[in-house]
Amino acid sequence: FPEFEPFDQATPRGEQPTGGGVMGIDMCQPVNKPQHNTSAYDITHLVIRRGQPFTVIVTFDRQLAESDDFQLEFLIGSNPSANKGSLVVVTFGNRPGSQWAGQIERMDGTAAVLMVTPAPDAIVGKYRTYVAIATGGGMQRTSRDTSTDLYLLFNAWCPDDTVFIPNESERSEYVLNDSGVIYQGAAGAVSHRTWMYGQFEKGVLDACIYILDASRMPIYDRGNIIKLIRIGSAMINAQDDNGVLVGNWSEDYSMGTAPTAWTGSVKILLQYANTGVPVCFAQCWVFAGVFNTFLRCLGIPARVISNFNSAHDNTGNLKTDLIFKTDGTPDRRNTRDSIWNYHCWNEVFILRPDLPSGLGGWQVVDATPQETSDGHFRCGPASVAAIKDGLICHPFDSGFVFAEVNSDVVFHKRDKYGTLTPYKVDKTHVGVSICTKSLGSTAPTDITYNYKYPEGSEEDERTMDRAEDYGCARDHSEVSEGSVTVVMITEEVYMGQDILLEVEFQNVSDLEKVVNALLSGSVIYYTGVIANDFKEEAFSVIIPGKKSEQRVHVCGTAQYMPHLGSQPSLHFMVTGETDTHSLSCMKVVNLKTPELTMAVSGFPRVQHPMLATVSFTNPFNFSLRDVYLSMEGSGLMECRSYSFRYALIEPFATVSWRENFSPRLHGDRFMVAVLYCPNMPQVTSSRRVF
Amino acid sequence: FPEFEPFDQATPRGEQPTGGGVMGIDMCQPVNKPQHNTSAYDITHLVIRRGQPFTVIVTFDRQLAESDDFQLEFLIGSNPSANKGSLVVVTFGNRPGSQWAGQIERMDGTAAVLMVTPAPDAIVGKYRTYVAIATGGGMQRTSRDTSTDLYLLFNAWCPDDTVFIPNESERSEYVLNDSGVIYQGAAGAVSHRTWMYGQFEKGVLDACIYILDASRMPIYDRGNIIKLIRIGSAMINAQDDNGVLVGNWSEDYSMGTAPTAWTGSVKILLQYANTGVPVCFAQCWVFAGVFNTFLRCLGIPARVISNFNSAHDNTGNLKTDLIFKTDGTPDRRNTRDSIWNYHCWNEVFILRPDLPSGLGGWQVVDATPQETSDGHFRCGPASVAAIKDGLICHPFDSGFVFAEVNSDVVFHKRDKYGTLTPYKVDKTHVGVSICTKSLGSTAPTDITYNYKYPEGSEEDERTMDRAEDYGCARDHSEVSEGSVTVVMITEEVYMGQDILLEVEFQNVSDLEKVVNALLSGSVIYYTGVIANDFKEEAFSVIIPGKKSEQRVHVCGTAQYMPHLGSQPSLHFMVTGETDTHSLSCMKVVNLKTPELTMAVSGFPRVQHPMLATVSFTNPFNFSLRDVYLSMEGSGLMECRSYSFRYALIEPFATVSWRENFSPRLHGDRFMVAVLYCPNMPQVTSSRRVF
Repeated sequence: FPEFEPFDQATPRGEQPTGGGVMGIDMCQPVNKPQHNTSAYDITHLVIRRGQPFTVIVTFDRQLAESDDFQLEFLIGSNPSANKGSLVVVTFGNRPGSQWAGQIERMDGTAAVLMVTPAPDAIVGKYRTYVAIATGGGMQRTSRDTSTDLYLLFNAWCPDDTVFIPNESERSEYVLNDSGVIYQGAAGAVSHRTWMYGQFEKGVLDACIYILDASRMPIYDRGNIIKLIRIGSAMINAQDDNGVLVGNWSEDYSMGTAPTAWTGSVKILLQYANTGVPVCFAQCWVFAGVFNTFLRCLGIPARVISNFNSAHDNTGNLKTDLIFKTDGTPDRRNTRDSIWNYHCWNEVFILRPDLPSGLGGWQVVDATPQETSDGHFRCGPASVAAIKDGLICHPFDSGFVFAEVNSDVVFHKRDKYGTLTPYKVDKTHVGVSICTKSLGSTAPTDITYNYKYPEGSEEDERTMDRAEDYGCARDHSEVSEGSVTVVMITEEVYMGQDILLEVEFQNVSDLEKVVNALLSGSVIYYTGVIANDFKEEAFSVIIPGKKSEQRVHVCGTAQYMPHLGSQPSLHFMVTGETDTHSLSCMKVVNLKTPELTMAVSGFPRVQHPMLATVSFTNPFNFSLRDVYLSMEGSGLMECRSYSFRYALIEPFATVSWRENFSPRLHGDRFMVAVLYCPNMPQVTSSRRVF
Repeated sequence: FPEFEPFDQATPRGEQPTGGGVMGIDMCQPVNKPQHNTSAYDITHLVIRRGQPFTVIVTFDRQLAESDDFQLEFLIGSNPSANKGSLVVVTFGNRPGSQWAGQIERMDGTAAVLMVTPAPDAIVGKYRTYVAIATGGGMQRTSRDTSTDLYLLFNAWCPDDTVFIPNESERSEYVLNDSGVIYQGAAGAVSHRTWMYGQFEKGVLDACIYILDASRMPIYDRGNIIKLIRIGSAMINAQDDNGVLVGNWSEDYSMGTAPTAWTGSVKILLQYANTGVPVCFAQCWVFAGVFNTFLRCLGIPARVISNFNSAHDNTGNLKTDLIFKTDGTPDRRNTRDSIWNYHCWNEVFILRPDLPSGLGGWQVVDATPQETSDGHFRCGPASVAAIKDGLICHPFDSGFVFAEVNSDVVFHKRDKYGTLTPYKVDKTHVGVSICTKSLGSTAPTDITYNYKYPEGSEEDERTMDRAEDYGCARDHSEVSEGSVTVVMITEEVYMGQDILLEVEFQNVSDLEKVVNALLSGSVIYYTGVIANDFKEEAFSVIIPGKKSEQRVHVCGTAQYMPHLGSQPSLHFMVTGETDTHSLSCMKVVNLKTPELTMAVSGFPRVQHPMLATVSFTNPFNFSLRDVYLSMEGSGLMECRSYSFRYALIEPFATVSWRENFSPRLHGDRFMVAVLYCPNMPQVTSSRRVF
């Protein structure tokens, strides 16, 4: 950008600039940051939000005269252009400028106190600031000064911004909260894990902008919320585009960090921005946690959602096909679909001017690479309101999300010729307990009814019909239910305890029925994929007419413990045959993990020394090897992540680890600790610090 | 695929197959191909269309008994699965099979004449055929025999297929015609060029399936017309995905074949399929021509469209911003948008079950890499009906196509401070004479009114308002038109002739007006990009009140000939100033090229020898160097492309080239010849052979 730019109609040669010089530009951080709710960012530059005025003080080398003509210039990207919004000229008089409004607040000697209001649809990112003064022959411009660079973010406080959210408590949670809770486990046994979003930590804002640069997203598209989050959803996973995180659902994490070992997003984002190489490894809650940081960091209201019994249908239809052999055992070779115990995605709160009215508000975006949307691993934004009403004709990927929460589970028998016959359809299994963290508390809020009408209601029928009209294939098999049904019941079980499984058969007919049944048990990943089979037990039950019969099966510690991987989910299935029908039932048992305790001492005050202590007692009669303990607290500890390795923890031994820290930010804050051991599921703990 | 597959509930070991053996499978090509309109494919395998019965004769080693149980099996892809539609079991009795219907037509001794009807939504591609017979212990299967492989295509004749088109003459043109015409030139001076689609030529069908494989599109998605054409639109260009063609809009084609030198699609597709490497080089009509071949080859009704004055707006808004300096000359450094003289895309005729009703029928798809749709270079399918009504909320990319045909051209003055002020808005320039080849003739059919309502009509206003509601930014500058307007008029001009430009100023005020004007002339690419400036002439005109004044400018051959590149478009612009206003006007002059003559002799009959003669006389007083002549005729010449090089053609010299050929297909057929010379625009010719 030239320091002197002659006017087009050149004046006689040799004429010297006559305007005043600029002595200094003050970006007024102490005034602007609190007004723009950006004080928490640990960064040396000004951070502001669009659509809202901010103050700049320009000091000249002499008192300004009436005839003096100057302008502020904000430039973004390598090729700034006035009519693409990447070269912004702010004028302070009658002369027309760009869309950003400028006003001289007052003169203070040689200093001009200026108010500038970025357009509410301005490009988001890092701008360079210049002051230019009209002289006789051209514009005399200040030279590049990186200290006057400013970051412009989306503004949930501005009614004209597409991310406006009217409620202050929602803005506090969805834009400003830098920690949160992600729900995991299984339907009926929901567990939670604290996640450090850390969007204000040092380097994170630059890392988020680096992600946009790495995607080669054009600068002039970066004011468009829909394009920006769609690019974000593609870039958070590494597939196709060398994005942030590499997914790994095996149990081999030796080439990187296990998905369960992370405490938050900061370390991941900094590593990616520093190396430019995808970070290993992630599963859905890691993708969702890092995406949430990216979104909140740029000012977009966002939250993490968990959907339990999430359908993962390879064909994008409304059927999840489970296939069984004639003897009742699962036919895994021929079963392609799967049901995830849970799946995490994000919601963003935005207007959808590209859609008919009524479809703005919360939108699903998903960074976990499941299916390719349009050839790239990305998903959304899909309007939650559109999903609820079956309006899956609207972009982006609403049909895919609709299937995740609405699929019917179809149980097929595969006969000896390879032909499939459906014998049971479960319309209520998939998409239950959809939940997210509550405002200002760590309890879950159930938002299932944001996504669907009550099962069997008239509106639900209409929704399903509409989705089918828009091409979502449904199952319409006529399945005659037999007179015997089966359910399984368990209580909460701690890892290392025996599991009591109560299998109850109910016979609604008048006749006695004989059931030849098979109970099988497996360790599964949360994606429903079988890791290890550990139990298969055949048994018969005679159920008198109009009666029910229970059988209690015991699954001992020794049976399942040797097979556990990094996640504590067991999958039990009962299949059976009467003289006329097949029956089946599935149950996921999520084991409760050992406890990790975390204590904090010292007076909780900003910049005062405090002490965190994490303790763990090995509850097992075997040693734990290669154990990593990590600790993190957004705004509490510096951005490096603390971690400690124990080569061995003896049976029943206790380890304890202390770290000093000084809080950086005040308010309600959280710390999290994670214990990772390759052959034991995740153990986490969190502590509130006010 | 195992030749013997034991039943799940295994029978005692050692039991031998007892069913009859299969002696032969006859795919009945002479019967099936005419019925399926696939006789023209030059391929040794059966080609059929889905949703329509075909005959297979299976000969057994003995007469079939009542109890004999056999099935046909059709497999596609590397991992066939029954519930994904890639392993199809066809049964011929009461036993249930897959979706494809089977029927025993009659028994003919030991031969069973079978009718099989593929589902109308079956996966499209190349299937492997097996016969399996139930024996005591399992299924006894025929071994792999590549001669029984079959190709299944989309079926425009089948009312249940998403590509159904009711009219036979439309099916003949849009599915079966293997040559066509693509319109080029400029609005008001439309020229045409014959293009050999050649979808039936040897190797082309395999090349089209290879493109799907190279895209790594999942097999089970290949029955879905919308996903398939969207992948196709991404794969025809090489950007991002190593697709078929590399775009090149420079004038340097030394590393490949110039876009203007191609005669048709066949050579391009075969080269891509044989090497797996993108083919150099293409511009929009090449992308559209090859995409048309791909679509028709797979059975999808498709046609090539030309849009004249096509907006290419980098921001996807409804404004094309042209920027001028204060002295009236174009400010190219600050102008980012451009208007293409013409742009070619494709339309496909399909149902859109994913959209509200009324939006099926013709859909825009565009393989030319302009903007990235969703990060990949692709565009569409976008419903033409939705574009006409401004319903740009519907996928895919309808907003982008809407802007291509509806943008307003906004003329800005850029003042010395860099501020832009609009001074003229032209709402009628963009998106004129949208046309395609007529059914059964080479004349263009104007389909502009498929895309938009008449300018200024009430419906047009409604459409524009609706598009704006869906986020398409429009220009609402208040521009006061001055009292003087200017237009330019030319007659048709042959290359090598002087151009007479008549510039007419009209003064509607009562006062005399003085205009200080500037006439500039440039050679441009068809994308509107300036290749060379060759003229700049300032002049003044005095126009009395309520009068008009003409000025005739002569642009001599010597002025423009040295600057011509591979396309014969000149761009003239008049800009001017009165005391109060700016005025401007643009005119594209498309030079008519020298003639290439083509003659065909011999009796026109299938498999009889004929002779084609192409002659060219250099009309210029300078030599032409490095001249290539190419000839092609779908169904007339073998699939290799004929080409001949002349190192030098002296001034006024005539060259003539003969080739023998024997037609392969009957009916109304075309040949095309193209003369390519690096420093002269394209010269083409075509001949009809019946």
